[in-house]
Amino acid sequence: MNYLCASKSENAYMFKIECRDKESMARTGILKTAHGDIPTPIFMPVGTAGTVKGILQRDLMDDIDAKIILGNTYHLYLRPGTEILKAAGGLHSFMSWERPLLTDSGGYQVFSLTGNRKLTDEGAHFKSHIDGSSHLFTPENIIDIQRIIGADIIMAFDECTPWPCEYNYARKSLSLTHQWLDRAIIRFNETDPLWGHNQFLYPIVQGGTYEDLRKISAEKVASAGLDGNAIGGLSVGEPPEEMYRIVEIVNEILPDDKPRYLMGVGTPVNLLEAIDRGIDMFDCVMPTRNGRNGMLFTSEGTINIRNRKWIDDFSPVDSESPSLVSRFYSKAYLRHLIISGENLGAQIASIHNLAFYLKLVGEARKKIEEGNFRKWKISMVKKLSERL
Amino acid sequence: MNYLCASKSENAYMFKIECRDKESMARTGILKTAHGDIPTPIFMPVGTAGTVKGILQRDLMDDIDAKIILGNTYHLYLRPGTEILKAAGGLHSFMSWERPLLTDSGGYQVFSLTGNRKLTDEGAHFKSHIDGSSHLFTPENIIDIQRIIGADIIMAFDECTPWPCEYNYARKSLSLTHQWLDRAIIRFNETDPLWGHNQFLYPIVQGGTYEDLRKISAEKVASAGLDGNAIGGLSVGEPPEEMYRIVEIVNEILPDDKPRYLMGVGTPVNLLEAIDRGIDMFDCVMPTRNGRNGMLFTSEGTINIRNRKWIDDFSPVDSESPSLVSRFYSKAYLRHLIISGENLGAQIASIHNLAFYLKLVGEARKKIEEGNFRKWKISMVKKLSERL
Repeated sequence: MNYLCASKSENAYMFKIECRDKESMARTGILKTAHGDIPTPIFMPVGTAGTVKGILQRDLMDDIDAKIILGNTYHLYLRPGTEILKAAGGLHSFMSWERPLLTDSGGYQVFSLTGNRKLTDEGAHFKSHIDGSSHLFTPENIIDIQRIIGADIIMAFDECTPWPCEYNYARKSLSLTHQWLDRAIIRFNETDPLWGHNQFLYPIVQGGTYEDLRKISAEKVASAGLDGNAIGGLSVGEPPEEMYRIVEIVNEILPDDKPRYLMGVGTPVNLLEAIDRGIDMFDCVMPTRNGRNGMLFTSEGTINIRNRKWIDDFSPVDSESPSLVSRFYSKAYLRHLIISGENLGAQIASIHNLAFYLKLVGEARKKIEEGNFRKWKISMVKKLSERL
Repeated sequence: MNYLCASKSENAYMFKIECRDKESMARTGILKTAHGDIPTPIFMPVGTAGTVKGILQRDLMDDIDAKIILGNTYHLYLRPGTEILKAAGGLHSFMSWERPLLTDSGGYQVFSLTGNRKLTDEGAHFKSHIDGSSHLFTPENIIDIQRIIGADIIMAFDECTPWPCEYNYARKSLSLTHQWLDRAIIRFNETDPLWGHNQFLYPIVQGGTYEDLRKISAEKVASAGLDGNAIGGLSVGEPPEEMYRIVEIVNEILPDDKPRYLMGVGTPVNLLEAIDRGIDMFDCVMPTRNGRNGMLFTSEGTINIRNRKWIDDFSPVDSESPSLVSRFYSKAYLRHLIISGENLGAQIASIHNLAFYLKLVGEARKKIEEGNFRKWKISMVKKLSERL
């Protein structure tokens, strides 16, 4: 027997591990939230401004079977703004989404505003990408904003360092991120949820690709004893091997009985390799953003639907897809829509790719339960790396 | 009794009139096609390039209940092109649409390419708006292309004159349109459908806003004895009263027992006024194009969702709508999406508006059957003219 299914979670309310793979650090679990249980490993579609781009909530549930989606604090703070979100009773109500939500803290977005932001100990001064207006994010007001948004899982404010990043910059940045974490936890503990349901705060491990910094950060984050932990600052340009190396180092330190969330990752192969290394949660714009450009993920490999070879291929986009949409439309039709710049093409490709990602993590879960994850992963990584 | 329900159609296969309003020229009917029966009056959503912009075929059927949609010969000829459409087995198969289709002849599009087209007796030479390549449309090849596309109803090639238009230009243009009609009918009669189902050819009445030209054209079109007849060259900038006047003049001449299609019209009020004057079929980009810009049609009047007054209106987009989407999402959320340039906003607004148009013509049908169309129309025109 090369697997083990049992609960090892100390906090059964928040996260319960169900099965462990004996050949890897992969595991399955159930993440409990007020808006429903989330089977892990899980992929979370990105709904930046309160919408997964181009997809009806109904299709997110029925076609894609999204268990949890993301919102982004930076975008939601700017539009529609906290006043409207408060009047609506939070984001769940505002966007008519009854399943779980997670909000990113805005750190990644603010630090992408190169030239339009300034860092101080207090927080991050930045100018809106919409109208140039000036704003300040602090670890405290990021908690306050996320209380208003009301996501089930909220993130501590951090600085996401770029790649490559000089050691001294990464070290100083990490120190600030850790100070901000302390302040975020204080604010989180002294405030209450606004909408009658519990919220969980996740801290974020940073430290670039520096092993010593990542270890320091993982120790810091682990010692906070929160209900889940995230790894940020990866998939920002570094080679995948670097990302896997850092994930291994960090996951040796992060508590085993809490969910581990690898932020902003990644390709289907990245997901499988990270699940192998003990990651439970993922989010990434890749399935939607690349889908809009005509890149389709399938279990046989990647399709660039713009390629001329699909021009008269009237077979379904993906006959193996759980999504009706992928089985309903042909590759030739989807190619026509994408080439013609028709929004329906972006919609079909986004639905297809998200359904594929959800199916992939669901299969990983099943393979872990069956005790043959490693073997399946190796064969899948090979197939997923193909260009069709 | 101020109405009369009975069949007056000589050609029961193609079109059967069911009820007539005694106070107006309004009537209800059933238009039979190989892909299903169409209750009239009917509105046909525009699917220019083989897609109703941003709307899944499933939603066109389930949410909007579209009975027939349009394709455009000009756009489909350029992309995906007749080779692909032929390989696909026609447009129904290519776009996975099993209900009826109508294709516009391309006349309107070609004549919109000001500066990029040249008219001769032979046909219209034009340059593609996509890549500048040179092409020629003739009355004959427009039939051939529409045989390949395979729509249930196809249109004769015509010149759509602008408004205003000098009398002499309108007269000469009409003469050409009539010559082209003769040639189109010859080609139509000497060719067969390619995909195993019948196709109907509709000629188009032109003549600008000149009463004598419109009468000549209506006589010409009526004498062709085809299965349905269209009125083109309206809703191109002229005042609505001019449009209604021309429709009245033309409908006095067009055979009463054939469907009458008013091309490219219009606002909800335009539809009701034209139904009153004996029109059975409509198409227009307004519900989708204006929807994308945030204009919503409701039974209480028009909403500009960008208006600040909707910013915190959390009531449904339209609680009276037959579309689930309109009842699911709030005005405040839709406003946020439209203001933020999120495609989901365009999708929701397009679905809502099309569902509204289909509901409106369905209600007109019901009111004609019940014998109180005129009264209802007057009250609706008043309400529909409101700005909310």
